[in-house]
Amino acid sequence: MTVKNAFYAQSGGVTAVINASACGVIETARRFPGRIGKVYAGRNGIVGALTEDLIDTSKESQQAIAALRHTPGAAFGSCRYKLKGLEENRAEYERLIEVFKAHEIGYFFYNGGNDSADTCHKISQLSEALGYPIRAVHIPKTVDNDLPITDNCPGFGSAAKYVALSTLEASLDVASMCATSTKVFVFEVMGRHAGWIAAAGGLASTEGLPVPIVILFPEIPFNQRSFLDRVRETVSAHGYCSVVVSEGVRNPEGGFLADAGYKDAFGHTQLGGVAPVVARMIYTELGFRCHWAVADYLQRSARHIASQTDMEQAYGVGKAAVEMAVSGENAIMPIIVRKSDDPYQWTIESAPLDKIANVEKKMPRDFIADDGYGITEACRRYLRPLTFGEAYPPYQKGIPGYVRLENRPVARKLNTPFEIAAGQK
Amino acid sequence: MTVKNAFYAQSGGVTAVINASACGVIETARRFPGRIGKVYAGRNGIVGALTEDLIDTSKESQQAIAALRHTPGAAFGSCRYKLKGLEENRAEYERLIEVFKAHEIGYFFYNGGNDSADTCHKISQLSEALGYPIRAVHIPKTVDNDLPITDNCPGFGSAAKYVALSTLEASLDVASMCATSTKVFVFEVMGRHAGWIAAAGGLASTEGLPVPIVILFPEIPFNQRSFLDRVRETVSAHGYCSVVVSEGVRNPEGGFLADAGYKDAFGHTQLGGVAPVVARMIYTELGFRCHWAVADYLQRSARHIASQTDMEQAYGVGKAAVEMAVSGENAIMPIIVRKSDDPYQWTIESAPLDKIANVEKKMPRDFIADDGYGITEACRRYLRPLTFGEAYPPYQKGIPGYVRLENRPVARKLNTPFEIAAGQK
Repeated sequence: MTVKNAFYAQSGGVTAVINASACGVIETARRFPGRIGKVYAGRNGIVGALTEDLIDTSKESQQAIAALRHTPGAAFGSCRYKLKGLEENRAEYERLIEVFKAHEIGYFFYNGGNDSADTCHKISQLSEALGYPIRAVHIPKTVDNDLPITDNCPGFGSAAKYVALSTLEASLDVASMCATSTKVFVFEVMGRHAGWIAAAGGLASTEGLPVPIVILFPEIPFNQRSFLDRVRETVSAHGYCSVVVSEGVRNPEGGFLADAGYKDAFGHTQLGGVAPVVARMIYTELGFRCHWAVADYLQRSARHIASQTDMEQAYGVGKAAVEMAVSGENAIMPIIVRKSDDPYQWTIESAPLDKIANVEKKMPRDFIADDGYGITEACRRYLRPLTFGEAYPPYQKGIPGYVRLENRPVARKLNTPFEIAAGQK
Repeated sequence: MTVKNAFYAQSGGVTAVINASACGVIETARRFPGRIGKVYAGRNGIVGALTEDLIDTSKESQQAIAALRHTPGAAFGSCRYKLKGLEENRAEYERLIEVFKAHEIGYFFYNGGNDSADTCHKISQLSEALGYPIRAVHIPKTVDNDLPITDNCPGFGSAAKYVALSTLEASLDVASMCATSTKVFVFEVMGRHAGWIAAAGGLASTEGLPVPIVILFPEIPFNQRSFLDRVRETVSAHGYCSVVVSEGVRNPEGGFLADAGYKDAFGHTQLGGVAPVVARMIYTELGFRCHWAVADYLQRSARHIASQTDMEQAYGVGKAAVEMAVSGENAIMPIIVRKSDDPYQWTIESAPLDKIANVEKKMPRDFIADDGYGITEACRRYLRPLTFGEAYPPYQKGIPGYVRLENRPVARKLNTPFEIAAGQK
């Protein structure tokens, strides 16, 4: 293979360390000048490839690229866009090939979660299906931690660390006031289908400083009576209680608890928020004063307290993706393999994309306590190392010194515009 | 004055650094063995004095006391309890004297905000009014930053730092997705009467990395049309927008925007949350996809990213309080005096409590932009130094190593129980 350019894109919801993967890709590609020409990033993800809106990362200084290690968000923009099958939308694939050809792109690096693994897998088949030679490597990234085969997903460890320490800090707060005031703190975290992030709330309680925490997992159907009993008993035993609730908790009928009949003055169902639903339930049924918080974007962009382990793994899979592609591999994803829990040791290997795309890793049932409201020792052993280390960003006068790249466009070579399917926007 | 014991209590909502003040009090008192015997802490604030529920801090190791510097929450418990006037509830004051006498307490250190400054002032008058010799010093603490005379209040700087960097991080997140998805992020912060904390969201935008932020202050009556225009223009100019909204924002009629007619299925007004109200308004009226977060307790207990300046000032006012009391002062509060903005220099002086109690410091109008949606350069100059420095706690295996004290009780000497007025609980 002669020198070819590389395409890199970020996909789906961001993480605190997705840019560390970008940094790993770009810094490593720069070490292979005889194989990889330039790294072009898609502006706003794969949409940038379809619309020929490419960013020339070679215009960015070494310093700016290095600063991606400690900058949250998606430096090149991201999107939610799932390519349909080749039969359903052949035009999209032909367009991608048109753009790749025009810019001499021979490497495709796609940094995302489940949907993007599927997209990357489809791209990796272009060579065989449409005769365009490409090496496609998926780079794992998701706070949801739900990709299969890999021991964990970059991005999750930092979200887990943020949720664990936020739960701990708020618990110390409610413990301070519980004798005469607020007795329950309700904390809503992400995880529509899997309870990995909610589970991390359980790490707030340690042997040295135990904290009473009740966790509501999306894997466990919500039982109001049993939950309220649990909260009452916990407050009675400890004086207070913290509840960590996954946004994806469902009632026994399968509906989201967040949609539990709350309407605004116009009769519209209220936009999101399971924490206020749970808080009102506790206040109404048990009479305990509650406070509640919703972390939303904060939990997936909290670079200020990113896990060092997570940052290193995010960089590592970006670096490995380039090395694997240069050595001739296609249709794979670098995965994290755990060698031991304590001391925590890990390495990076690879797995075929057809085993990864469209497979969702749920929490094993033995990670959730029998009663459904806590995590087990096995879960704790799995989760803890992912939060090890504090990868602090540099600060300038009180504020993190995050970088904004110049993101200079690559000159267009095609004069054929491409319309993104409206439903996908 | 012979050797007397000291009483210390924490009051009202906690901060990330209130325990640093406790640390300053206890460590400094231990340096005056010829003047101060033991430091007794009130369990759950002043309620501990009324119910003779005292904690013997002399039983805590030097190491445990030192760890208070980096531990959030209120280590001895706090409460919201405002002493009535001497005429209205003489029994409470007589009870306090009874407890103080029984435990040979000659120093009273009260660590709190506006209400507790008032309580401390009343206690400081006991000597004159009821003949009990006491030296009462108030130690400032409030995330609300609304105490007068002092340049700023310990606790606020850390909340400000948390809000500034959370706003920045979430803004980088929404900026990543705005081309094809979420365009507005709404972040609810504390501040029922004053917009100091909301103002801190404005620090997220810097010259090096400007971020479009719209702030809703409690000082500025909410105008829906003007606000929506502003959001629409901002999204049109930048592609996205972050809204920082104070919980205390009111509509022109004076009602809290958080109570804007949202009811649950049972017709109850929903518990708190102005962020979802604003998010729905933007989505309904402008059609922009929104995400929203509510920081609640997280912003006042985020010790993991406390401001070093704030931590030093919190410790400093605790230390100064003891030194002032030992030197014979009464009815005062140590205040922070700013010597210069840049480089930031400050010192600690004292102010009489009668000038502080029941006075609330609002944001100066010239700290709020003319249009009411941002902060001015003067505000920025005031706020920034308060967030300088990162006072990181130590970590143990991924989680902050916060301390829980033993809080051993002082043996009771009275056999007269005291009932706290029910309405105050």
